Amino acid sequence: MFSVHTVEYDMDVHGKHYRTVWMEGMAVKMIDQPLLPHRFEIAELADHKATAGAIANMTVRGAGAIGAAAGYAMAQAALEAPDESDGFKRYISLAADTIRDTRPTARDLFYAIEKVLEAVDGADSPADAKDAAVRTAKALADENARAGEEIGKIGAELLKDGMRILTHCNAGWLAFVDWGSALAPIYAAKRQGKKVFVFVDETRPRCQGARLTAWELAGEGVEHAVIADNAAGHYMRTGEIDLVIVGSDRIAANGDVANKIGTYEKAVVAKENNIPFYVAAPTSTIDMKCASGDDITIEERSDDEVLYTRGLDDSGQVVRVRTAPEGSSGRNPAFDVTPARYVTAIITEKGIFEPGTILRESPPS
Amino acid sequence: MFSVHTVEYDMDVHGKHYRTVWMEGMAVKMIDQPLLPHRFEIAELADHKATAGAIANMTVRGAGAIGAAAGYAMAQAALEAPDESDGFKRYISLAADTIRDTRPTARDLFYAIEKVLEAVDGADSPADAKDAAVRTAKALADENARAGEEIGKIGAELLKDGMRILTHCNAGWLAFVDWGSALAPIYAAKRQGKKVFVFVDETRPRCQGARLTAWELAGEGVEHAVIADNAAGHYMRTGEIDLVIVGSDRIAANGDVANKIGTYEKAVVAKENNIPFYVAAPTSTIDMKCASGDDITIEERSDDEVLYTRGLDDSGQVVRVRTAPEGSSGRNPAFDVTPARYVTAIITEKGIFEPGTILRESPPS
Repeated sequence: MFSVHTVEYDMDVHGKHYRTVWMEGMAVKMIDQPLLPHRFEIAELADHKATAGAIANMTVRGAGAIGAAAGYAMAQAALEAPDESDGFKRYISLAADTIRDTRPTARDLFYAIEKVLEAVDGADSPADAKDAAVRTAKALADENARAGEEIGKIGAELLKDGMRILTHCNAGWLAFVDWGSALAPIYAAKRQGKKVFVFVDETRPRCQGARLTAWELAGEGVEHAVIADNAAGHYMRTGEIDLVIVGSDRIAANGDVANKIGTYEKAVVAKENNIPFYVAAPTSTIDMKCASGDDITIEERSDDEVLYTRGLDDSGQVVRVRTAPEGSSGRNPAFDVTPARYVTAIITEKGIFEPGTILRESPPS
Repeated sequence: MFSVHTVEYDMDVHGKHYRTVWMEGMAVKMIDQPLLPHRFEIAELADHKATAGAIANMTVRGAGAIGAAAGYAMAQAALEAPDESDGFKRYISLAADTIRDTRPTARDLFYAIEKVLEAVDGADSPADAKDAAVRTAKALADENARAGEEIGKIGAELLKDGMRILTHCNAGWLAFVDWGSALAPIYAAKRQGKKVFVFVDETRPRCQGARLTAWELAGEGVEHAVIADNAAGHYMRTGEIDLVIVGSDRIAANGDVANKIGTYEKAVVAKENNIPFYVAAPTSTIDMKCASGDDITIEERSDDEVLYTRGLDDSGQVVRVRTAPEGSSGRNPAFDVTPARYVTAIITEKGIFEPGTILRESPPS
């Protein structure tokens, strides 16, 4: 039932290894993330449209996990497509559009769609293309898991025993296929015997920090405290945070970083207090076609996410509660752009780069 | 049933004027703020201990409103105290300790207690002292309401037609006796016919922005959008915010400002983007005995406030929901300190001061 282990260590739930998203036959399976940490359930998506819906409604979320899910959705589309060549191409092209339209910001989504399209284009027949699509989607997921493990090893060298680390949103294994990006160095450091403490921004509006990062850290036995996003600056100013690590959804060629809304504020305040601010991301997140952060589309989501909060009520039901008055509306940008000048360095599976050196060094993506 | 109007304009609820807190006979009455915006109810506190409890559990909150409630609680204590002189003094002194211990950060709380104690000390007999205590408490509330109105008039000159303003937490009339501090200039500008738009930080963990500021602005017909605290920086960077106004719970002699957690982050990001950052507060908030922000005690509240969110569920009940996993704990500083260098100016009822000039100009408090 569970995916094959392709990494040395891996992330366990109740003693069993799970990846965030995987494929079984024609179906895509994924951890149903909006239910976490209150319920652990696996969602099964029968076809590429269902998987696209799961990306759009954030059943799966996080840059790398979205990418893997998009690759699998493309593989589903290939398996569903007619066996006749023109019909196959039309079906795949429409499916790519459907999957592309789910979320606009994460680079990995577009990267995965492109890679599967390339594999399909290089095949001799629809039958070969179906095989190639499935193989490519699985390879993308494996590549993502391996990148997370490498980021962990490389990033752990920056973490010293006793360090207090701030992270924002969830760039852990749930945001990828395995391991994660921002949390991978923390897991690797922990397994090296270093003791670290993590301040977890709850990350309104969807509380991926309070729900997912805290759940991951508890599962790995890493000491942590959930804080209101507002408290991060206070702890930076009062000397209680040594280092910040966040993930990224897209990195422009000039080193500007798109990540979960609020990242920019943390980066500015970190710089103001001379606290190193690291971005951890696989090189697949780097978009060389995107010259700067100004070219990154920022997704605006429903204001319901701001006006309501989801959680577990006293009777054990996951419900939403409204904080704002009925007459008020909101605005809800899901991401922001942190200019490269606030970023100390980017931790990738290929090494640690200063953001301004991406154009010179051109890490292949 | 409602307090006498002592200001030219005043804040209405469903067409009736309410103050945030007032006294009727021996009882203190106040708007029950944790129920807002979902229910509008008046809490009645029979004695000074009940009123102290209402300050501690935030039935009443906001610098000025806490001050007025503390003054009224002292007046209740005076009315409750024995008529015999030594017994009266002992009772008042113990009551002052009880009220002082409710919240450590707001200057107005200590200011009100001191003022009532001075009035009591200056009286010839317990009977005179009782009268003096009630008179002083009412005068403090009136002074607070008048200061809010003046701050509104003075601050409105900074607001131009079409401006887009960011505010954090609630420093509106609910945080004072009437009018407010940060929102008073917005109300005054609106009544002068200027059109302004307000970005309302929801202000986790207790969501005073989403709950109270949005409710006040809707009541006054001011256009606004509730945003996650994380989104404020994004809108500052992208040029959608012209000016920031916040309140304050205590201002040190060097101009450092204590205010709701998250204020510091907004101030740093505002400065980084050359956006004016104003603090609006009556001069009673200035604590000349406090040399700098380092001397201000920051209240740490229960981590339940971070781990849970209160709001209205789909059945119309006000409930709390838990976002974080059961195994995780949190940290919850209620305030932070914004160093004076980030503050463009302080808007008081006596004029607009640069924060560094407080020591030179010594506005009487």
